[in-house]
Amino acid sequence: MFVSLDGFAAGTYVTLEEPFGEAMALTRGHDGRAIHGIGNIEDITFDGAMASMFDQGIGVEIMGRRKFGPQSGPWTEDGWRGWWGEEPPFRTPVIVLTHHEREPIAFDNGTVFHFLDASPQEALRRARELAPGADVRIGGGPTTVREFLAADLVDTMHLVIVPVTIGVGTRLLEDGIPSAEDFDIRSVTLPSGRTHQLWNRRRGD
Amino acid sequence: MFVSLDGFAAGTYVTLEEPFGEAMALTRGHDGRAIHGIGNIEDITFDGAMASMFDQGIGVEIMGRRKFGPQSGPWTEDGWRGWWGEEPPFRTPVIVLTHHEREPIAFDNGTVFHFLDASPQEALRRARELAPGADVRIGGGPTTVREFLAADLVDTMHLVIVPVTIGVGTRLLEDGIPSAEDFDIRSVTLPSGRTHQLWNRRRGD
Repeated sequence: MFVSLDGFAAGTYVTLEEPFGEAMALTRGHDGRAIHGIGNIEDITFDGAMASMFDQGIGVEIMGRRKFGPQSGPWTEDGWRGWWGEEPPFRTPVIVLTHHEREPIAFDNGTVFHFLDASPQEALRRARELAPGADVRIGGGPTTVREFLAADLVDTMHLVIVPVTIGVGTRLLEDGIPSAEDFDIRSVTLPSGRTHQLWNRRRGD
Repeated sequence: MFVSLDGFAAGTYVTLEEPFGEAMALTRGHDGRAIHGIGNIEDITFDGAMASMFDQGIGVEIMGRRKFGPQSGPWTEDGWRGWWGEEPPFRTPVIVLTHHEREPIAFDNGTVFHFLDASPQEALRRARELAPGADVRIGGGPTTVREFLAADLVDTMHLVIVPVTIGVGTRLLEDGIPSAEDFDIRSVTLPSGRTHQLWNRRRGD
């Protein structure tokens, strides 16, 4: 998750041109090889290297509806198949949390969007059925990640603190959720100016 | 490539128990998720994240014979199939440079070792035939990497400077090869004490 210096991980609106609303600055300049098999071959950067964890060992993603598209309310026959064209970067099953369930949408590269009206616990159980033995990525947006954090369902979190301010939007860390004491937190600041943090949940003694 | 503070990337000998000889300390404690689908699920570390670049976009590896096994001279019928058991971490074709060519060895997970007596340029041409459009990883050992560096065939190099001294062995960087002026070099020191460097070849102005 990308977070601004003032704590925002998403803006207040989502449009086709600005999927992150006011928070577009969070991913600007996020270059280098990021996702297996997708993207140009450019200089390899530390930020790109960190992002190359994206699909390592992951068998399924859970995302909020806003990450899938800008619509709200009941689905219409608008032909929307997600932000990513015919090559979504997931290549695995993806659970889209929504109050409006619908039939799955499948792509040739292995990506299959399943639409589920479920609690975080139920969604996680369903994710593990879809990809036994693999890890589950909670892909965002921040509201969805916060729900899983509040339910103590996150073992590892990768934050990228981006040296910009946004001013408005949705915060990832708020109301004491999660408690930093529950995690071993390591930080490193890269030449790009971004600070990457790895949060690993502390295990029992 | 892992390099000690005194510049060594391999020891003077290779045995079944110590594939890096005196340089075993270079990879000690190299934990965290490193290679897609292989290894235990542990805490995710920055070093592990950097290592997760290992297979991103790579379609073939070129390695020296010593990386494949401890033998020298003509091959014997000893049943050796590499250091890695039946799950070699490559999952792609691999070219093993040797003066003693032999039939390929294939594994169920996609790894196929091809044995080739060739110059760096010829090996690279053959690698590109084996994996059109993908990147080629020069996997080591240091002598092999130095040959490709000397021939100006390396676009990107990922070095891990490990805070140990080895005292003897094979150096990676020697005799002014490669010239650091030919590369844009970025460094970051991680909480583990290791310094990772990304060398990207400078392009023409």
